[in-house]
Amino acid sequence: MQELYILKIGGNIIDDAAATGTFLKRFAALPFHKILVHGGGKVATQVANRLNLPTTMIEGRRITDQAMLEVVTMVYGGLVNKNLVATLQANGCNAIGLTGADGACIVAKKREVTHIDYGFAGDITEVNHKVLTDFLLQGLVPVIAPLTFDRQGTLLNTNADTMASFLSVALCKNFMVSLVYCFEKKGVLSDPQDDESVIASISPQEYARLKNDGIISKGMVPKLDNAFHALDQGLEKVIICHAGELNEIIENNPAHSGTVLTLA
Amino acid sequence: MQELYILKIGGNIIDDAAATGTFLKRFAALPFHKILVHGGGKVATQVANRLNLPTTMIEGRRITDQAMLEVVTMVYGGLVNKNLVATLQANGCNAIGLTGADGACIVAKKREVTHIDYGFAGDITEVNHKVLTDFLLQGLVPVIAPLTFDRQGTLLNTNADTMASFLSVALCKNFMVSLVYCFEKKGVLSDPQDDESVIASISPQEYARLKNDGIISKGMVPKLDNAFHALDQGLEKVIICHAGELNEIIENNPAHSGTVLTLA
Repeated sequence: MQELYILKIGGNIIDDAAATGTFLKRFAALPFHKILVHGGGKVATQVANRLNLPTTMIEGRRITDQAMLEVVTMVYGGLVNKNLVATLQANGCNAIGLTGADGACIVAKKREVTHIDYGFAGDITEVNHKVLTDFLLQGLVPVIAPLTFDRQGTLLNTNADTMASFLSVALCKNFMVSLVYCFEKKGVLSDPQDDESVIASISPQEYARLKNDGIISKGMVPKLDNAFHALDQGLEKVIICHAGELNEIIENNPAHSGTVLTLA
Repeated sequence: MQELYILKIGGNIIDDAAATGTFLKRFAALPFHKILVHGGGKVATQVANRLNLPTTMIEGRRITDQAMLEVVTMVYGGLVNKNLVATLQANGCNAIGLTGADGACIVAKKREVTHIDYGFAGDITEVNHKVLTDFLLQGLVPVIAPLTFDRQGTLLNTNADTMASFLSVALCKNFMVSLVYCFEKKGVLSDPQDDESVIASISPQEYARLKNDGIISKGMVPKLDNAFHALDQGLEKVIICHAGELNEIIENNPAHSGTVLTLA
């Protein structure tokens, strides 16, 4: 089987034009099949502000009413996605921008209202690995916005970390998949105040202990929960690293750090 | 060769949710390879207004500065395109939304500044018919937003009528192509005040006369110029009709009208 790297970049990188430019140049040069999954929450909040729409976040998730759904459709599916695609094309990478509705590649259902009504938020039910595999084998590089749809015509706002994890699991059927979460830190830190305190590798047992001790908390928990779930389903590896060290880490250059999640 | 219908719908239809819904249901049912090219200028103007950005039109074309480029990227590439795709998917049509940057399918150069500076407006230089043909033969239905790119990373605002015409000519290599301009009138009218005065067919000689006599003028002229240029390059036919009569006209139902352009 051929190798496939699925990379996720978050809003903090996308919000910084210089960091995005450097990242995309390096991403374009990776000599594997690859998929880029992106966020864009910071830009969505900026555009919502300019439209006088308040942004409400609960537990790090955006409440997506009809007006906010229009904003994220514009920002994620249009502004962010198409600029990433155009820049990748300029770097010689044959990118194609997709939401879950395009080719019905990622289907979701609207999250049920419990004590919180997230509005038009999607929980993924199905990844169409065939259409994505066809694109990859045609030499295309999917660039995926955090939007899915419900097969009834409604787009749904979907967490990009979760999308990357679901894509990885679905594409394990056809590729040897590595999942890479790129963000603004060098990896999972044992001390949030010390950017150099990167934990080199974490097993499920260690993860349970780190969570229990409160060393890993907040936004890192759903990311790692997703990652270990994906590993259980047959992924090769999960890497959590700084966007600017992507290539060195993939090449196993020991001078660069990052956190590798393993089942061992 | 297989048949391919390339349909263009304009902003007046897209702006009307009921008209769009009816059109998409009928479009989804067409039993041919097909491509949908859409506008969205009215929605772009609404969003620009909400962002306090003035819209300047010269000779029916939008002046696209950096701020307006962001608006059209959001609206055409995101809001309009992805909602069309989601609705077509709900109607059983395997749509995929594209701009010219996606798969580098439509490349343009920034329009040169003469007496008018149109800003980030694109004049098409190249259509990548191979990637579009691959998609069509995979059973996908491209839904194309009026955005191209310059291969240097910049997106460009591009007239949707012109895009439809360039796509038709490029895809003649691989398909028997019919180009259909759908709008809110029943066809080209001999009397703009009388919606029933549809001219059933127009040859190049008649077109020259109708233009000369001022019967065809304004926005219809670039549309028909594009259409006759496309016919010269080997297109099967060009139809100009009401979006709601699409299927009947394609089926040659004599109770429904529309204008057919011919070289004869």
